[in-house]
Amino acid sequence: MEQFTRTQALAFMAQGAPTGHLATTREDGRPHVAPIWFIIDGDDVVFNTGSSSVKGRNLAREGRAAITVDDPQPPFAYVIAEGPVIISEDPADLIATATEIGGRYMGQLKAESYGKRNAVPGEYVVRMRCDRISGARNVSD
Amino acid sequence: MEQFTRTQALAFMAQGAPTGHLATTREDGRPHVAPIWFIIDGDDVVFNTGSSSVKGRNLAREGRAAITVDDPQPPFAYVIAEGPVIISEDPADLIATATEIGGRYMGQLKAESYGKRNAVPGEYVVRMRCDRISGARNVSD
Repeated sequence: MEQFTRTQALAFMAQGAPTGHLATTREDGRPHVAPIWFIIDGDDVVFNTGSSSVKGRNLAREGRAAITVDDPQPPFAYVIAEGPVIISEDPADLIATATEIGGRYMGQLKAESYGKRNAVPGEYVVRMRCDRISGARNVSD
Repeated sequence: MEQFTRTQALAFMAQGAPTGHLATTREDGRPHVAPIWFIIDGDDVVFNTGSSSVKGRNLAREGRAAITVDDPQPPFAYVIAEGPVIISEDPADLIATATEIGGRYMGQLKAESYGKRNAVPGEYVVRMRCDRISGARNVSD
């Protein structure tokens, strides 16, 4: 097993189109986790989510999150990142991020249509700063 | 998008060898998430983790968890499950579950060696009962 540096961990999350798994804390303390589409912008994980979704409400109330991204095939690799979040509802930010995220996961030909589909009123742009980030590759070796 | 029934969601988690992403709550309320290997036993998600790991300590203190499992390729599918956990340190339970889990992710030829590697003192067997379970397939259609 080889530990990632911060730079390697961010590069791992930015490569290809792996889904992320976003953990938040519910009001009563129970954990919540859900898969997300995301992009990496500098040291930030950027994603869209509905303001009335469980994760949207948890993020607005708690202001923090954690995410895992992994390669689920042997020899396995993963990254765990945690940090505070900033939420925006700016329409220009929403269409720009939703288009980029749509392109990452559905291909550039569908970026614009997925951007329009997802950049609707009530959607948040969430930026999680990776204050803590760790991970490794060749985990099963 | 087609919602899974409970039976379909459990079958999705039991099929192939997808990693799980386990969310727990830290003592100060911050969320934690990490990838795990697991098996499905009836309505339970069963996995091993170190008693001194962040997730091991959170599980022992909080007694509950949440997990996501997904297919990260278009048209995408996912399951989210949540529930209480029961922790065992019984050596026979530990070697049995570690061997079955090793076989799932590394293949039957390596099941015994991964079972022995992972069934060491200080490891927990964790059973999370899926009190809440939901998910869908063809998410991007």
